[in-house]
Amino acid sequence: MTIYDISEKAGVSIATVSRVLNGSGSVSEKTRKKVLDVISRYEYTPNAFARGLGLNTMKTIGILCADSSDLYLAKAVYYIEQKLRANGYDSILCCTGYDPLDKAAAVSLLIHKKVDALILAGSNFIYENDADNQYVADAAAQLPLMLLNAALDTPNVYSVISDDFTSMYEATLQMISGGIRDIVYFYNSASYSGKKKLAGYLAAMKEKQLLNEAEFVQFYQGSHEDIPAMTAHLKKLHDEGIRFHGVIASDDTLALAAVKYAKLMGYSVPDEFCVLGYNNSILVNCCDPELTSIDNKLETLCQHLINTLMGVLSGKEMPKKTVFSGEIIRRGTTQ
Amino acid sequence: MTIYDISEKAGVSIATVSRVLNGSGSVSEKTRKKVLDVISRYEYTPNAFARGLGLNTMKTIGILCADSSDLYLAKAVYYIEQKLRANGYDSILCCTGYDPLDKAAAVSLLIHKKVDALILAGSNFIYENDADNQYVADAAAQLPLMLLNAALDTPNVYSVISDDFTSMYEATLQMISGGIRDIVYFYNSASYSGKKKLAGYLAAMKEKQLLNEAEFVQFYQGSHEDIPAMTAHLKKLHDEGIRFHGVIASDDTLALAAVKYAKLMGYSVPDEFCVLGYNNSILVNCCDPELTSIDNKLETLCQHLINTLMGVLSGKEMPKKTVFSGEIIRRGTTQ
Repeated sequence: MTIYDISEKAGVSIATVSRVLNGSGSVSEKTRKKVLDVISRYEYTPNAFARGLGLNTMKTIGILCADSSDLYLAKAVYYIEQKLRANGYDSILCCTGYDPLDKAAAVSLLIHKKVDALILAGSNFIYENDADNQYVADAAAQLPLMLLNAALDTPNVYSVISDDFTSMYEATLQMISGGIRDIVYFYNSASYSGKKKLAGYLAAMKEKQLLNEAEFVQFYQGSHEDIPAMTAHLKKLHDEGIRFHGVIASDDTLALAAVKYAKLMGYSVPDEFCVLGYNNSILVNCCDPELTSIDNKLETLCQHLINTLMGVLSGKEMPKKTVFSGEIIRRGTTQ
Repeated sequence: MTIYDISEKAGVSIATVSRVLNGSGSVSEKTRKKVLDVISRYEYTPNAFARGLGLNTMKTIGILCADSSDLYLAKAVYYIEQKLRANGYDSILCCTGYDPLDKAAAVSLLIHKKVDALILAGSNFIYENDADNQYVADAAAQLPLMLLNAALDTPNVYSVISDDFTSMYEATLQMISGGIRDIVYFYNSASYSGKKKLAGYLAAMKEKQLLNEAEFVQFYQGSHEDIPAMTAHLKKLHDEGIRFHGVIASDDTLALAAVKYAKLMGYSVPDEFCVLGYNNSILVNCCDPELTSIDNKLETLCQHLINTLMGVLSGKEMPKKTVFSGEIIRRGTTQ
């Protein structure tokens, strides 16, 4: 149904329909009601409006991510954009930063732009406290919402995730069975995925009855790119008397800092000191020895997310949540 | 001027104007001419059309880049999107890949979407052969076109670039004055910027009367992320009898491969072997010693590009080309 049809059925001009749709200009209450009646009767949507006008500005999906220059998110945005375009959709990109208020504002803004759906790329859009996720539920009341590597049990929200818990659980068990028992968990995000990873590490350590001292779970707060600061964080831990011979990191950047720390301390990797990274990014080849890392199958996730979205947009019943397994890619920093 | 004004001045319905603008539906030649006459007389642009309709889908800039997951381009997209949004503009992102035909097709597509301007991010959109740049000139006939780190002398095209020639020239002279004379130039792009960098290296080598053997200029053709393959490229060079004790690379990835090569050969860095990278990316902290690299002031370039674009869009006279100097950031891989 197009604006022409509405105009015809309501018996008013196209300009009037446009004014009603945009809430602008003077339109009598009676006329406004007539137009809105037609719209609700025929389930007209603003997207159809624009397409009907032939403006070709719709068929557009909003992609939100905290920081498109982050190695993981840059890949995600790249895959998502490509696969959307292959399906004839444009992508409006919005980098929100990590502040919850900014994220919520960006979601509102994109909905206002009348995109067909929103993709929240990266698990940092979902918070521990349910109340903090109300902005996602509110958005989903208006349009389909796709979560990449996060989940929320709310109508019209679809999730495609990597099983980060199991990946970390298995990787931790492997490191323990390789003879390393004093393993620091080094992370910088308490996102949905961040918590699953930590839980995987804790579950494995507990299963092997290894002491989970609070000092062994280390949260790094600084810049996501400042590898020297990450290395200094581990060095400080050592200076405080904490001894450890393994680091399991929530991403490759932190893992690279751990390799640097081992070198600084004169530990031989992987004989005396083991490191595991996450994301299997370009960084795995940057250190010596090369980094063992978990491949979380990002391209597969993105492809599946777009397939799901296309199904949803064409009115099909689609799975609410799909989980893929990760894979440990062994290189030189673990036994 | 809005579609309503055109409709009024041409004495035809809004629907007819829309059909003419979109080249759809049946409109008599006479009517079509009448509409187009009004449009050309009043310098109507399709953007004003959409804004006039209050659709709120414009104030949108198309960002094109070959690959938004490339480290340099990911940063560029991030800065550009942020700074556009700070000015109230949305960004439609389009990752084109490196094929010239795909790039030209993406430009057409975005123009068809009636964005307000296009930003071509990365110098690989401009080719050596002028005929190959016709697609840029054609696009600029329809809307302002911004080039990040590339230049083209065509109306309505604005360039913001880093002085890559001088940066490379000075860095090469520095490496020579540090005692290294057999310096391989290692690159993977013959883009606008790629050629400037190579020319800087060649100028310095020539000035110092160092033999520029063809073997010393090495083009790497493989994947932009495959550091082991880059290292193998240098190793093969060695196996073919070419001896070199310095590598100047067109980006940090290639430079990191050179550091790995030095380690493989048992050279001490920087005493026996020096390496210079480009872009001052996250990779500079990944190797040991850390990488000397050229900071090409990407954020400054992006800020200036957006300032220029905002000036252009508001009808101001803006500089066609702005050049910023890069800076050599010395770390452990050079003397």
